[in-house]
Amino acid sequence: MPAAALWRSLRAHQVYGANTDVGKTIVSTLLCNALQHHGPVGFLKPVSTGPLDEADDRHIQRYAPHTQTKCLYQFADPVSPHLAAHTPTTTTTVPSDPQLLDAIHHTLSTWSSQTATKHALVETAGGVHSPGPNGTSQADLYRPLRLPIILIADSRLGGISASISAYESLLLRGYDVHSVLLFRDDYYQNHSYLQEYFAKKAIPLVAVPPPPVRPDSRAVGAAAKDAEAMGRYYERTGREGRLGAVVEALERKHTERWERLEEMARKAEATIWYPFTQHQGVTAKDISVIDSAYGDYFQSYRQETVGNPIDGNGALRSTFDGSASWWTQGLGHGNPDLALSAAYAAGRYGHVMLPGNIHEPALALAETVLQSQENPRLKRVFYTDNGSTGMEVAVKMGLRAACARYGWDASAEPIRILGLKGSYHGDTIGVMDCSEPSTYNKKVEWYRGRGHWFDFPQVGMKDGVWKIRMPEKALGDELQFGSLSEVFDLEQRVDSEAGQRYREYIHQTIQRLVQQEGIKFGALMMEPIILGAGGMLFCDPLFQRCLADVVRQHPELFAPQTSPPAQANDWSGLPIIFDEVFTGLYRLGRRSAASFLQVQPDISVNAKLLTGGLVPLCTTLASEPIFRAFLSDDKTDALLHGHSYTAHAVGCQVAVDSLQTMMRMEREGAWQGYQRDWTVASSGRAAAAAAAAAVAPAGATTTGPSVWSVWSHELVRDLSQAASVEGVFALGTVLSIALKDQHGGGYTSRAAQGLQQRLAAGSEQFAVHSRVLGNVLYLMSSVTSKPASLRAIEEVLRGGLL
Amino acid sequence: MPAAALWRSLRAHQVYGANTDVGKTIVSTLLCNALQHHGPVGFLKPVSTGPLDEADDRHIQRYAPHTQTKCLYQFADPVSPHLAAHTPTTTTTVPSDPQLLDAIHHTLSTWSSQTATKHALVETAGGVHSPGPNGTSQADLYRPLRLPIILIADSRLGGISASISAYESLLLRGYDVHSVLLFRDDYYQNHSYLQEYFAKKAIPLVAVPPPPVRPDSRAVGAAAKDAEAMGRYYERTGREGRLGAVVEALERKHTERWERLEEMARKAEATIWYPFTQHQGVTAKDISVIDSAYGDYFQSYRQETVGNPIDGNGALRSTFDGSASWWTQGLGHGNPDLALSAAYAAGRYGHVMLPGNIHEPALALAETVLQSQENPRLKRVFYTDNGSTGMEVAVKMGLRAACARYGWDASAEPIRILGLKGSYHGDTIGVMDCSEPSTYNKKVEWYRGRGHWFDFPQVGMKDGVWKIRMPEKALGDELQFGSLSEVFDLEQRVDSEAGQRYREYIHQTIQRLVQQEGIKFGALMMEPIILGAGGMLFCDPLFQRCLADVVRQHPELFAPQTSPPAQANDWSGLPIIFDEVFTGLYRLGRRSAASFLQVQPDISVNAKLLTGGLVPLCTTLASEPIFRAFLSDDKTDALLHGHSYTAHAVGCQVAVDSLQTMMRMEREGAWQGYQRDWTVASSGRAAAAAAAAAVAPAGATTTGPSVWSVWSHELVRDLSQAASVEGVFALGTVLSIALKDQHGGGYTSRAAQGLQQRLAAGSEQFAVHSRVLGNVLYLMSSVTSKPASLRAIEEVLRGGLL
Repeated sequence: MPAAALWRSLRAHQVYGANTDVGKTIVSTLLCNALQHHGPVGFLKPVSTGPLDEADDRHIQRYAPHTQTKCLYQFADPVSPHLAAHTPTTTTTVPSDPQLLDAIHHTLSTWSSQTATKHALVETAGGVHSPGPNGTSQADLYRPLRLPIILIADSRLGGISASISAYESLLLRGYDVHSVLLFRDDYYQNHSYLQEYFAKKAIPLVAVPPPPVRPDSRAVGAAAKDAEAMGRYYERTGREGRLGAVVEALERKHTERWERLEEMARKAEATIWYPFTQHQGVTAKDISVIDSAYGDYFQSYRQETVGNPIDGNGALRSTFDGSASWWTQGLGHGNPDLALSAAYAAGRYGHVMLPGNIHEPALALAETVLQSQENPRLKRVFYTDNGSTGMEVAVKMGLRAACARYGWDASAEPIRILGLKGSYHGDTIGVMDCSEPSTYNKKVEWYRGRGHWFDFPQVGMKDGVWKIRMPEKALGDELQFGSLSEVFDLEQRVDSEAGQRYREYIHQTIQRLVQQEGIKFGALMMEPIILGAGGMLFCDPLFQRCLADVVRQHPELFAPQTSPPAQANDWSGLPIIFDEVFTGLYRLGRRSAASFLQVQPDISVNAKLLTGGLVPLCTTLASEPIFRAFLSDDKTDALLHGHSYTAHAVGCQVAVDSLQTMMRMEREGAWQGYQRDWTVASSGRAAAAAAAAAVAPAGATTTGPSVWSVWSHELVRDLSQAASVEGVFALGTVLSIALKDQHGGGYTSRAAQGLQQRLAAGSEQFAVHSRVLGNVLYLMSSVTSKPASLRAIEEVLRGGLL
Repeated sequence: MPAAALWRSLRAHQVYGANTDVGKTIVSTLLCNALQHHGPVGFLKPVSTGPLDEADDRHIQRYAPHTQTKCLYQFADPVSPHLAAHTPTTTTTVPSDPQLLDAIHHTLSTWSSQTATKHALVETAGGVHSPGPNGTSQADLYRPLRLPIILIADSRLGGISASISAYESLLLRGYDVHSVLLFRDDYYQNHSYLQEYFAKKAIPLVAVPPPPVRPDSRAVGAAAKDAEAMGRYYERTGREGRLGAVVEALERKHTERWERLEEMARKAEATIWYPFTQHQGVTAKDISVIDSAYGDYFQSYRQETVGNPIDGNGALRSTFDGSASWWTQGLGHGNPDLALSAAYAAGRYGHVMLPGNIHEPALALAETVLQSQENPRLKRVFYTDNGSTGMEVAVKMGLRAACARYGWDASAEPIRILGLKGSYHGDTIGVMDCSEPSTYNKKVEWYRGRGHWFDFPQVGMKDGVWKIRMPEKALGDELQFGSLSEVFDLEQRVDSEAGQRYREYIHQTIQRLVQQEGIKFGALMMEPIILGAGGMLFCDPLFQRCLADVVRQHPELFAPQTSPPAQANDWSGLPIIFDEVFTGLYRLGRRSAASFLQVQPDISVNAKLLTGGLVPLCTTLASEPIFRAFLSDDKTDALLHGHSYTAHAVGCQVAVDSLQTMMRMEREGAWQGYQRDWTVASSGRAAAAAAAAAVAPAGATTTGPSVWSVWSHELVRDLSQAASVEGVFALGTVLSIALKDQHGGGYTSRAAQGLQQRLAAGSEQFAVHSRVLGNVLYLMSSVTSKPASLRAIEEVLRGGLL
């Protein structure tokens, strides 16, 4: 992934045509001539098609002779590059898209540093969406460079439409258009309409005189006449200074962009109150300026310091978004398909208030997300805006259902939550109360923890062996496994000694709390498998399974004289709430982390990945019995909760498209490579995990549930051997590395900071942004991350730890 | 506003070209011939330019003779309609855009009902953005009809780009493309590339044989030869059945759309858990299916019932969005500028996690929203996703600042909120606790109100007189005013007898609560001027002003031995939090409702209108002293709050553009007409409010703060005279009508239901969607609502009440 293109002294622009044959090269020639008064000018044609003597760089060489020109790839056929590149007569090697980007970036960097080039034009072929050599639309192909754009509009009949549509296609991909040029045509007057149109966007438009009509090419001396006429045209147009306004605008926009990049960190430090940030001591240099983002990478502004001059490789750096932007990214940054989905919903609806109404995106998402869970209990979808609000709704649902069934008066006595230590369900005060007192909540003035939280056995690899450490003697000794699949093989494990111990311990604890301490519980609430914000705590799936089993099989624990529910799919004991905000929707390699446990929750909450990483949206799914607890003749018994933008069309549409894309990837086996890697590792466990062989549960098979990660098994094994590592695991898109901390972990631990700094320094090509939770450093990919990109990051990790 | 176009038996499609001259009319002719086998076909050319004998409808008449054709407006010049319509030679009357839409809708309705037309093609001119007769791009001009589209792609060099860009421009406006057609060109092979492209979008593409090359028009008998060749072309292509797949696709998509529209309400009733809805008794027929929305209008599916057949005027109805979609709409539904803003941010960034980073939309919005408030105290912006979460943050800020200054230990003793009765700050449990026990919160199991809430004097018009009713004897007698401006003339009123009474009452109450009852208050929290969800309660601004004054001028009330803060703009007494989620950003005609009070809050929360009505986003603004209360060497003293999509780029970009648009409208005097209406009403008060003259405060002037509404003053006055009306007011975009209720108001009142039903029945042209809060029915516009549209709704209101 080359960095986006930006240099301090070099003003590089990409020239796009609103259509083919709108005069890109002629306008570029005019521009080169106008720009040369301000410093050296370069003209780069990445891909050229058609006869060599008509090539655009040749034209520039002839009519703007002071310009440095270069053509990277030349194909003879005068057709679109995707056809020209693949005709039998092609002798030029066809570059891959990344090679093409690298070559452009390299050329511009060289011009900037070695020839003091001040302006460069990078000319495209045809229209904005004309395909490049590999068939990728140019607007997509060149997006990683995100060069500012000079758009050559179409002055012909129909050109208004072509020009505006081309502009919209560019904006949809996050490009900035710095200037629009076109030929003046006094009959169609497109320039007049477009001038007014672009003035509203604060984009200057200049109409230049049309070039001379080409003589009939069959006539004697046509070529010479044409050349002479063109020469006069360039000379006259240049003399008239028609492009002065454009040159001035390009210069102004370049300067403004630089000034803004330079001041942004300082201004942000002065105006933004950052979430989860102790501002004491934070200065502008602690803030990264993100100029844009694409795929898995931020394009970060490289702050200039003494000894670290910006020019050369440019001012922007590719930084791997190693927290998947707080666990939101599914389909990558700057995804044009999601951008179009968002735009479509915005254009068709804007926002439509939900109560009493239905619109297609809200219904389609409800259907899609229910289907994705493969949980016959879940029948109803309640929409909110984020995981925290979705969990507030889940709590309200669970408590109401329990109080209604058990006849409790919640205004008279406290009803509590049964959960796990280290759990985290959001930042609004109601759901803060669902977690044990912790760093996150204990200083919040209104926080009052309302629950009991079990400590639990944790999974991790150390020294090449998967281990489960017990928090209490009552739960037995540490367990060891030859593979992660075995850890998840609940069919085998549920009746093991560990399983029996877990169930007994849970049963006795609840009995004591309810019968001796008189506590009333209203819901069981868990993040299945991994407790994210609590510190990437990987809970033994067997423990969570046993917790759910005990709650459901022993309703008498919670309210005496209660009989099990008559209906299938009704809740029993307590409503079970799964907080899948972090774990759900392929985060751990599966649609739902509940499937690892083979437990069907009564209430399930999804957010984050739901919209593929674009906008906030949350679904709280519930069973019919939960829903029916709110039915009544009294209007005020309803779930009186709702946010203004509930089920906003943009979020729902993006979520539908995002979920369907991920489910299609699953169907089409997009992750088979990763799955093979982890299956092989499992099968080969006999050799790899000889140390663990003695304690592996008898009869464990290697054909347990499919368990895999995008992070290589070999990496996990190698890191687990590192002296500084306490434990490591990978599952789905998550890699978690717990580092040894002399001073004992916790949110304020600094053990992981060294590794984080090494990742931030990165390699020649890229840096890695990461987040730490206490002594844990984690990395997270999207579901579309490229294997090569992940392997490169693994190398940086190895360098940092081994 | 004509309804969007949809009929049961008539399949109407709009034919758009990816560019001019791509063969729209030839393909339409092929289509008409293919469709005629399935029933009567109509061809409608709304606007035609060029010589009459070449007109497209003539072409259709000749080569698809069974087709019913019509051209609505014909201009002679072969240029874009916006030029043709305004050349001196034009004899055709130029229709306005709404007239054009009406004419199309009327023609199609007539065809559907009178000639049993089964398929109709509505052909556009040029490309998708080619301007219509008044210069509006066709894609925008025809958007209210939102006909499904047949896109004629471009088969020429550059045509791939033109076709994809045209498609994107259409999607950006919420159009559905049902089919793509183009000429087969074996050299450029655009059809092959585009087929693959559109297959991914599930849009069928059919390539048809290219038409015969036209003979040189100067040759003898050229016209006849051309006609003969075209005849053969149509005959042969028809015989080969090339368009069968398209006809089948159009039929299938029409059927699917119908089936979906018919099932959506039922499916929604079965899967969606609606916010604020008692589902008991809700059936599918209580749910409106919103097919799309544009401007202020939903396009609602008109459910077919016996005696209410759908065909005729069509299946969709314009319904005025009278709650502004739960108070969110600023710039109208389906706004293409906001859609493009959203798409740009999605394309440039997707979402970028905020901590440690900054990106342009987040910074630009922080700067813009701070500037918009004109409050020198507010310096910091904390982002969340909605009003409820933003208020949770505000509470955390306020409580921390107070506890830190006063040395209170909030874990040991409860800290409370000082507020107003009927206040409402959101649905998460923490902010529910900030309001008095009410219908909204009292059944929430974890709700525990933590505060004291003042009852307050309320403003409303009855019998043509503005009155302020007192809730307590201690506050004096009812006040009467000749105009609303006088109510807001705080400069005059602050030292009035009422003001003195208010201050004394407030001071004594706080003194009693703190000193006698030992209550500790951590913040003063108010919705300035109007308490929205509490029932559109219009608080006497003088009371809120006095409340703020007493709190700030008497810090000794809250903690003894405290001295006033040394620094300017530091808080005094209590941090003052303004919840402007409902009232802010031009809702009441001003950027901030705080300006009515001339009180500068220390913390201010905005949401809803912030994004102009597109996606959820919230800003909590705070002063530096509030911010500094969280600074410490201890990381965990920070404000540990943050949602995954904090400051998501899409929301921030849309908000920047939305705010700047509204501020520009203000600068440019977009609301001067409304302002004049209300100023005249104020000046003429002597006559109009003779009854009130005796009690109007001495020396009141008519040049108070500018107070106005989009709803006409005359309407308010007239409604205030209605027997069934208890009181009425309008301010900014809000009109509130309190109806007399025999059974005493409240959330469950049914008094307003009759009026609501009359509005829903609407007029011939449109219905009105409204929401009621107890016995209050309110209507709310966007800031871009058209005066004519509002006056039409006022007529319906008069019909319902007078």
